[in-house]
Order: sequence, then C-alpha cells, then structure tokens
Amino acid sequence: MKHLLGLEKLSAADITKLLDRAESYLGVGVGSTPKRDDLKGKLVVTLFFEPSTRTKISFQLAARRLGGDVQDFSPGGSSTSKGETFIDTVRNIEAMGIDAVVVRHTSSGAPEMLTRHLLPHVSVVNAGDGSHEHPTQGLLDILTVRQRKGKVAGLTVALVGDILHSRVARSNIHGLKKLGAHVIVCGPPTLVPPEVKQFDVEIADDLDDILPRCDVVNLLRVQFERQRSAFFPSVGEYAHVFGMTRDRMKAAKPDVLILAPGPINRGVEITPDVADGPNSAILQQVENGLAVRMAVLGSVISDW
Amino acid sequence: MKHLLGLEKLSAADITKLLDRAESYLGVGVGSTPKRDDLKGKLVVTLFFEPSTRTKISFQLAARRLGGDVQDFSPGGSSTSKGETFIDTVRNIEAMGIDAVVVRHTSSGAPEMLTRHLLPHVSVVNAGDGSHEHPTQGLLDILTVRQRKGKVAGLTVALVGDILHSRVARSNIHGLKKLGAHVIVCGPPTLVPPEVKQFDVEIADDLDDILPRCDVVNLLRVQFERQRSAFFPSVGEYAHVFGMTRDRMKAAKPDVLILAPGPINRGVEITPDVADGPNSAILQQVENGLAVRMAVLGSVISDW
Amino acid sequence: MKHLLGLEKLSAADITKLLDRAESYLGVGVGSTPKRDDLKGKLVVTLFFEPSTRTKISFQLAARRLGGDVQDFSPGGSSTSKGETFIDTVRNIEAMGIDAVVVRHTSSGAPEMLTRHLLPHVSVVNAGDGSHEHPTQGLLDILTVRQRKGKVAGLTVALVGDILHSRVARSNIHGLKKLGAHVIVCGPPTLVPPEVKQFDVEIADDLDDILPRCDVVNLLRVQFERQRSAFFPSVGEYAHVFGMTRDRMKAAKPDVLILAPGPINRGVEITPDVADGPNSAILQQVENGLAVRMAVLGSVISDW
Repeated sequence: MKHLLGLEKLSAADITKLLDRAESYLGVGVGSTPKRDDLKGKLVVTLFFEPSTRTKISFQLAARRLGGDVQDFSPGGSSTSKGETFIDTVRNIEAMGIDAVVVRHTSSGAPEMLTRHLLPHVSVVNAGDGSHEHPTQGLLDILTVRQRKGKVAGLTVALVGDILHSRVARSNIHGLKKLGAHVIVCGPPTLVPPEVKQFDVEIADDLDDILPRCDVVNLLRVQFERQRSAFFPSVGEYAHVFGMTRDRMKAAKPDVLILAPGPINRGVEITPDVADGPNSAILQQVENGLAVRMAVLGSVISDW
Repeated sequence: MKHLLGLEKLSAADITKLLDRAESYLGVGVGSTPKRDDLKGKLVVTLFFEPSTRTKISFQLAARRLGGDVQDFSPGGSSTSKGETFIDTVRNIEAMGIDAVVVRHTSSGAPEMLTRHLLPHVSVVNAGDGSHEHPTQGLLDILTVRQRKGKVAGLTVALVGDILHSRVARSNIHGLKKLGAHVIVCGPPTLVPPEVKQFDVEIADDLDDILPRCDVVNLLRVQFERQRSAFFPSVGEYAHVFGMTRDRMKAAKPDVLILAPGPINRGVEITPDVADGPNSAILQQVENGLAVRMAVLGSVISDW
Repeated sequence: MKHLLGLEKLSAADITKLLDRAESYLGVGVGSTPKRDDLKGKLVVTLFFEPSTRTKISFQLAARRLGGDVQDFSPGGSSTSKGETFIDTVRNIEAMGIDAVVVRHTSSGAPEMLTRHLLPHVSVVNAGDGSHEHPTQGLLDILTVRQRKGKVAGLTVALVGDILHSRVARSNIHGLKKLGAHVIVCGPPTLVPPEVKQFDVEIADDLDDILPRCDVVNLLRVQFERQRSAFFPSVGEYAHVFGMTRDRMKAAKPDVLILAPGPINRGVEITPDVADGPNSAILQQVENGLAVRMAVLGSVISDW
C-alpha cells in the first residue's frame, strides 16, 4: 500500500491486515514497552490545513513510536498566506527530503491530488479531507468494534447524526460494509443526503425505532463550527431526538457498544453518564487511534 | 512525590531534596556535558492554556535533557474551541499513552482537579494555575537565593508588587517560610490582599521603609495583561514607588540579591542598570529554572 | 566562522568553502543515507520574529540531520507581547543552555546586535533581517548556479523585481560579485534604489533588453505583504513587464537558468509553464537550501 486515501478502495483483506497490524502495535512505546524501529531514518510530515491538534498528535506519536522522525508544517500565517499554491507548498516540503505526508485539508480530494504531484517514493496519508473520508478514524472505530464484539461481520451498526458533512461516516460506511456489517445511517433528513443510498445502507430518521436492533451506535459529533445554516431546529431539539441518554440506553441491547469520534459535546450527542459508562469505548478509541496510525504509517512507508 | 501541585503541601525536607537534586542537574545536557536517561522511554506532555513560551520551553528542554520525549499540546484553535471539556481533552491525551502532564491553566486548582481524573500512573506538574501557585518558579527563586546567600533560613526576603494576582508570590511565600526565611510582601494596598496575613508574613506598603532590612528583593512582574481594572494610578507612579532603581539600590544592603521572575518590564519594576548589575540574578534564575524542572520531572516520574 | 550574518563580509574563499561543504552534505539524512553527528549534543534555537515556516523547517531539518537538537521559539503571543525586549528574550533563551540561534527579524541588523549581547560560545545565524541580508538564501541560489552552470565566475546573472525590499537580492549581489559574476539588477525604478550602484552592478529597467545576455535569471518574489504603498501600478502590469513567460523565454539563451526564491506567485513573477519547465531549478534550490543550512550550522558550531 503506497498511500492511504480512503477505505472505499481497500479490500476486506487490506482492512483486516491493517487492523491486525494495529492490534499488534497496541502499547508499543508506552510505559516500559520499547519503541520499534520500522521507520528509522524516515521523515513524516504532518500538513494540517484544518486545526486538529488531537489527530495530528496521534499521527506524530505514532511515527515516533515506530522510530521515525516527524516534522510538523502548520501553514497558518506562512507561505500559503503569501499566495503560494497547495501543490507548490507540498512540493517544496517534499524537496527537503521526506518519506510521507499526512495531510488534512478542507477540500475533498486534496490528498488524492497530492499523489499525482509528488515523487514516486513519497507516501500520502489522508487525515481527513473535506466531507470525503477520514480513513484512520474509520479504521480505529472498526478496530474498537472488533475488539469489543469479537467480530464485525453480521453486526448492526448505526451511524447517528450529521451524515451529510461527515467524512467519519463515509469511512465507517465503506469499512463496515466491506467487513460484512449491516449499517444504518440515522439523522435528521437535512443531514442524511439521498446519495447515501448508493452505499447500500439502511436509512432511518428515528433513533428510537432502530436502537433496539443495534449492536453498535456511533454518535457522530455535531459540528457546530460547520453548522452555518440551520440543518436542525436547535441543539436542544437535536439532543432530545438523537442524543444518547440514560433513558434511551434502556431501550438498547444491554451490551450495545457506544462509540463517539470526539471531541464530544457532552449533553448534545451524548450525555455524560453514557459517555463515562461501561458501554462507551471513547478512550479505547483514542488508544486504538494511535495503533491504527502506526499500522498505516508502517504499511505505506515500509513494505507490507 | 507523584505530582507537584504547589509548595504549600510540601515539607521543608521535600523542598530541600528538590533543590539538592536540581543543583546536581545544573549544566546537564549543556555544552559537552551529556544528557541523562532518567526519563528514557517516558513521554511528557506540555499542556498550556495560557501562552508562555518560556516556561514551556524550559520544561521541554528539561524533559529532553533527562532523556524523555516531549509532546506539546497547544489547545488554541483546536478541540477546546470545539466545545470539549478540559477533562475530556486531558483524558484523550492520556489515552495516547503518556507519563506526565505539565499544565498551565487560568483557573486556580485545575492541576489538582486533573489528578482526580487521570490514570494512577500519570503525574501532574503545575506550571502555573490562576493566582494559586507556580511551584517551579518558587523553587528556582529559592534555589537562586540559596546559591547566592549560602542559606535560606534567617534571611529577610521581600516580594514586591502585585501580590493579589501572583501565583509566583504564593509559591515563594510557602517555600521561603518552610525553609525559615522572614518574608515581607510589599505593594500598593490594592494589590496586597488582606488574606496574605494568614501566611504569617510581614505586610508593607512602602518599599523604602523595608529595603534596608532586606537580604533579597523579588520584583514581581507588573502583569499589564491582567491589569484590566486600575489597581494603581499609572505605570509611572508604580515605577516611582515600587520600581528598583539605582537610587533606591543605595539604600539597600550592598549585597542585596535582586530577583525578577521575568519577562521583565525594564523601567517599570526594575531599571536596566539594576537588571544588568551585579546584584541581579535574572539569568541565573533562568538557568536554575531548567535544573529545577529536571528535578521535578525526575522526581514525579521516576522514584525519588 | 563564529557567526553568519551576511555574505558581504565573507571572502570568496569563505563562500567557496561553504558551497563545497554544502555539496558534500546533499542527501545526508534522506532516504537510506544516515544522518551525521557533527552537532551531537548541540542545541540550535530557531527564533523567527517573522512568519516563515519554510525557512524555519529547512534550518530545523538541517540541524537534526547533523545530529543536533532543535528548539523552536515562536514569540507570537508570548513574552515579547508581555513587553520584554528583544535582547532580554534572547538572553533568556541563551541562559537555558544553547549553542546557536537562527534568527529572523523585521529589523535590519538585529542578528548583528545579538552577537554583541550573547555569550562568546553562542553562534548567530541570520535567517533574514529586514531588507539587509538573507545569506543562506544567497548561498543556495549560488550553489544552484554553480551546479547547473559548472561555475559562477564570468556568468551574467540578472536579479529581477523588488530590489528595494529584498534581502535576497543583497545577499545574491554580494556572493555573486565575490565569485566573479556580472550582476544586473532589473526592476521598476521605484523598486531599484539608487544605492545599489555602490555594489558595482549593472542597473536595468527593461527585462527584454537584458534577457538575451543572461545566463541566469533570478525572479525575486513580489512581496504583496510588504507592498503597502504602490511601488508599481498593478500586479497585471508587473507581470506583463517583469514576469517570466513562455514568450519571453524565447528571447533568452536556450540554457538560461531560472531561479525563484519562493514561495512563488504563479502568474506574477513567473508563469506556471516556466516554473515547471526544464530551465527552472526551483525545487533544486529547496534541496540545496537544506544542504547549505547544514554547512552553515556545521561551520559556525563545529570548527571548520
């Protein structure tokens, strides 16, 4: 695998291989477990055109725990503000001698465009592009499902919330379908675009209707920062209809798994008691995120 | 010592142990003196919710000179602006596998709150919380006193300026009292709150009155950025009454030690000739700051 | 060489030595070529008072590829905003135990001033000061010329554009003249100050006039961010008269070398087809920049 642009183009075998590799990396470089040296002498650049300290740090720690070097490139206030094009910026970074670029961009397709302009030996990893994909988030969600449920195939997984803007939803849909899960997307009709039908998923607009059937519920973050026009009446209304509360949990399977990609809005898509309760795997997701990013960087830079 | 939240709860023996350890670290990792490996494989996160490049860098260099890894987390523009709570942010960082958090926060008590929410193996170091404490600044000031005066007990130390907002003052008061110094707090009445009486310190509002008795004068920074309401008539007036000038130095003991936590406002709390003169220890404080932070990180992460 | 403040004071032999050293470093630390350890145990601080991610990263990678440690100091929002002077800031950084400061500053002469205030063992490297010099950019441009043309002496090199504000122009002029090139500065009269006559260069205001004679054309960036008052009528007008286009290339020597310090404004000082064409060396300049910065850091910190 030279690049990771999304889960849509990967096979079930590719995804399983990445998940297995991630699982083998859990805990590497933490506490008394030593780092690895898979990326010794390799330089990974993080290039985030949208702020995301958390995902960026996860990638940076992942690279270092595999023995690689990391250089962050924060375009804020620099060359891009001097009128340089995106491609010129990246080709300049590339000319400094690098092995991989982890890129987040507001435009869907930006990472794919990069692959057509960089030297053949440089790998591109998509850390989220517009509303297209966020493949490592998809992988870490699916890894968490596999760990907690022992399998993915045959499970019913609901993605709840803003499907329209969510690259997380797209990566989850692709990955989960490939591994044989039944996927339900559930949200206000304004946030569930008709195009999602093409992904062969079930569409629902009433969480209470589908909840009793779900093995996993993934509560997408309400992206207030993207909520420029009103896609739903009010936050309170959203929380009432789509928020996961203690009351609503009573209607769910006792062992339902609750995921949330975070940063979570407590009291909106999830109440604190559910977020901190035994069905939630929020912090396990973070830990898996690191392992997944190690697996991805290891796979695209080294051979696999 | 699992955490360092302040000097108030430490014993004189604890403080002396930290100062001794700091002294043994002076110069480690500088020039041809090699680094140590006390923190080999350990990850220290700096988490600053207030800007402070200088203190942050001091902690980062300290961790690296003990062989540790460092990851900065700058919340500006990231998850916290997406509505995530402070605790969620830190628990997420923690889930990435870390050993210590160095935290600066505008709210007094934030580091202490962290200790109740993190995993047992993660240490918290307070790098300044609200107007509560800034223990490493207190330790480095006291280390400088001990180096230059050969002792702390029995000395008369004046803290001059904004006692009301100053966590530096609080940490100095606690540490100096524990080690047996006589402490005078001196400033305009608006900036010397009545509560300081509880610390068993002498209160003064006329610097010229007390100056002849002082062995050490610590000139707290006038925090223009916090000076929203008028606590004193004008900067010129403040400088006239509480600034350390060449003229005022004539009334002091010839070997009076002048400290200033910095960044200094030349011409306000201190004139350039005094700041750069032989009684000043401003740069020695910076150097000691690094050694103190090495001692603290070494103590909370390794055993001591 | 203790410091690198500019090319004006260097001899031809000094410059040649740096270029040779840079050439020997090409590719070090990239791909499977291991790093060097010339700067083992040395700490380089990057101190940029103007934003320039690209130059800063180039220096940081250079230091690390020689085995050194790097600490960035970004004054934005920190001590300098608290009223501290430039010298106090740097002396504080110095007191933390460092070996070299790479400084960029809006004021011409700031790096030179530093050399008079720092400890004798600390080296200063100028990464661009006001409109004075940007010596590593000059060196990397000249290295690129030498690589592509096999020599510098006897070549005719045109510097085109904003000579008035350009530290890049000044460093190129000094370096090229020392090595025996014939230098033409060409731009609108408002941007070519009369003082440049002192440098013994040819002055031109018509690019088409001089182009056929040029072996190298260095297209200075139009600095929109400095273009507060109108030095030329419009960007379109500038591009028309001084931009390097495919049409204009027909009047140039077939093997004319096109340089551009970047970040480039495509369609202003250079059209995309020229920037990406065979006569352009833009990315080679970036690669050389890293090697030049390694040579400079190696020279000022180690002996040479």
